[in-house]
Amino acid sequence: MNYFSSDFKLGILGGGQLGKMLLTETRKYDIQTLVLDPSEEAPAQYGCTAFYKGSLLEYDTVYQFGKMVNALTIEIENVNLEALEKLEEEGLPVFPSPKTLRLIQNKGRQKDYYVEHKIPTSAHQRFVAISDLKKALEKDTLDFPFVWKAAQGGYDGNGVKIVRSTLDLIGLPEVECIAEAMVPFKNELAVIVARSPKGEIKTYPVVEMEFHPEANQVEYTICPARISKKVADKAQKIALQVSEAFNHVGLLAVEMFQTEDDDILVNEVAPRPHNSGHYSIEASYTSQFEQHLRAILDLPLGATESKVAGIMVNLVGEEGYSGPVHYENISNIMAIEGVTPHIYGKRETRPFRKMGHVTIVNEDMAEARKIAEQVKNSIRVISQN
Amino acid sequence: MNYFSSDFKLGILGGGQLGKMLLTETRKYDIQTLVLDPSEEAPAQYGCTAFYKGSLLEYDTVYQFGKMVNALTIEIENVNLEALEKLEEEGLPVFPSPKTLRLIQNKGRQKDYYVEHKIPTSAHQRFVAISDLKKALEKDTLDFPFVWKAAQGGYDGNGVKIVRSTLDLIGLPEVECIAEAMVPFKNELAVIVARSPKGEIKTYPVVEMEFHPEANQVEYTICPARISKKVADKAQKIALQVSEAFNHVGLLAVEMFQTEDDDILVNEVAPRPHNSGHYSIEASYTSQFEQHLRAILDLPLGATESKVAGIMVNLVGEEGYSGPVHYENISNIMAIEGVTPHIYGKRETRPFRKMGHVTIVNEDMAEARKIAEQVKNSIRVISQN
Repeated sequence: MNYFSSDFKLGILGGGQLGKMLLTETRKYDIQTLVLDPSEEAPAQYGCTAFYKGSLLEYDTVYQFGKMVNALTIEIENVNLEALEKLEEEGLPVFPSPKTLRLIQNKGRQKDYYVEHKIPTSAHQRFVAISDLKKALEKDTLDFPFVWKAAQGGYDGNGVKIVRSTLDLIGLPEVECIAEAMVPFKNELAVIVARSPKGEIKTYPVVEMEFHPEANQVEYTICPARISKKVADKAQKIALQVSEAFNHVGLLAVEMFQTEDDDILVNEVAPRPHNSGHYSIEASYTSQFEQHLRAILDLPLGATESKVAGIMVNLVGEEGYSGPVHYENISNIMAIEGVTPHIYGKRETRPFRKMGHVTIVNEDMAEARKIAEQVKNSIRVISQN
Repeated sequence: MNYFSSDFKLGILGGGQLGKMLLTETRKYDIQTLVLDPSEEAPAQYGCTAFYKGSLLEYDTVYQFGKMVNALTIEIENVNLEALEKLEEEGLPVFPSPKTLRLIQNKGRQKDYYVEHKIPTSAHQRFVAISDLKKALEKDTLDFPFVWKAAQGGYDGNGVKIVRSTLDLIGLPEVECIAEAMVPFKNELAVIVARSPKGEIKTYPVVEMEFHPEANQVEYTICPARISKKVADKAQKIALQVSEAFNHVGLLAVEMFQTEDDDILVNEVAPRPHNSGHYSIEASYTSQFEQHLRAILDLPLGATESKVAGIMVNLVGEEGYSGPVHYENISNIMAIEGVTPHIYGKRETRPFRKMGHVTIVNEDMAEARKIAEQVKNSIRVISQN
């Protein structure tokens, strides 16, 4: 197949920051792209060959969009799967496949799948609604504390809650959900696996999510993770096991916990470029976005090693600010060597909205970590007065 | 000034591959861009906020375009300077300034300028037309051999010819020109200097152009140049001297010769991102395109050091092929670690047309050089069928 400067058209469902960063790579290879997103302010509206405004959840919209392209990928899991199934049936390459997406879209089904495939994960119970979960508590088949997760549609901390008592149940929506055993963990880790249709597989190094000691919020994504080789090897092995089970094409980001006993438990997966791989744009031989493109187009996969140590800091909207965005002190952080801001292109900030990220690269990890803290303490995403 | 996700608009004159690669960086920072180019197939038509088709040489077109933006830059020198002068007079930031462009647009004036500023360069004579040059030969004030260069408009080997005898004069156009002394040189080197309005200055490492031993054609651009520290320091120093003389804002690529006696002679300059800096996208902490943007927007300049060794191979159309382009063996080279193709997005190939480039990065320069040769010997830019 000839992709480069040809009539070949790649469709991308979703026009957020992941789609935007993927487009950069399609431009480098001069591959034509069509993007579908419900928002006319979608970050990925520029850089594609053509942008279409429309729902990702409507069968007809997704199906018609699919009929215009030669291959289809996603940057968000929450899309109409029936349309994708129909398109795949009609011969369109759809990566990740709707089968993989169906498994992943529902967190209960995803957890069951791990159990079936003997992939280590924390214990869980599935409930069709919160009322059923409450019954399980009454019957003592479920105990406090546990982690409540909405089975579908949650992201960025939405749809997840630690439940320690009946009081914490107040306000939880009446939707399908799971209750997960709370596992004390030392580290949250992630491994991105790339797989092409012809079965070539490559894994990126293990990354580590460093949490704020008090706020319990991820502050830094660090590559490579500061863990022993033994634990890193185990995490890589399990990530490959998950990749094999899902038989995906494209990227699969595997999020994991490293327990107090150095066991690795799979938390969840995303079949696409992932926040934990943003460091790769500056640090890796092949960025995760280029790799996703290589994988879904069945081109040879690129090297996943790092050139230098990389740390990523998310830029989220500061609490108490809403409106046209202002990046306070962005010039200050740009004056530091090896610091690159990525601004996603959302005009309005809101508390905790993902507005961009900053990558810090350095030959020396300790130095990178020091600079990352400096960055984190300088830049603020606020609104214009 | 607030550039990020704001109403600020940057205008770019020219929509070729340099403009296209610059756009990648404007997307990263979410800066709005308007691009003007005469061709509706311009590589930079995607990735900008708005594309305008129009002449870069017509006063009105350039002036009206300038009135729509908050700052203006170029990716090609051959633009209407009167319009830029008027816009600058009216307060628009124009970088590089029309004054710098005027000096550079005419190669005779550029050479005079070096002489005035005591910048080492090969001896030259200026002629208003080829007929005047012929008279100088008759009067013996000019001797064979020499390098003929058209004073204006030449690029990519056009407008340059080595003249060894009267025969070589046949077919040269009746335009203003210069005759340069032929200097035997060991190496062709280049240094990119970045300078911001507030006067911050950074230089990239010295790069080396390696020529094909027989074809006398640049095959590889290599960073860092494989030269002694003493010669590298001298080249850097002279590049800074040139930068100071031009007082430019943005990038200035300074092309130089290293003579048999290790003298450095300035050949010519370009006040913009340059082919000799393409390696920086993969190899440097800050790519030349990001640096140009930082410089013209008066943001802090980024680090110019390299993460790894970098070699760039131009992809030019193979002789004997014209028509819809096909990149033969591109998959083969993508299977090699550290190899990244950049396809500019020109649909039709022609002999020697610049269609893209390939970057090879590696921790080890010798290994990178070996892979570069492998790349050069594999990929071919031909037409379909």
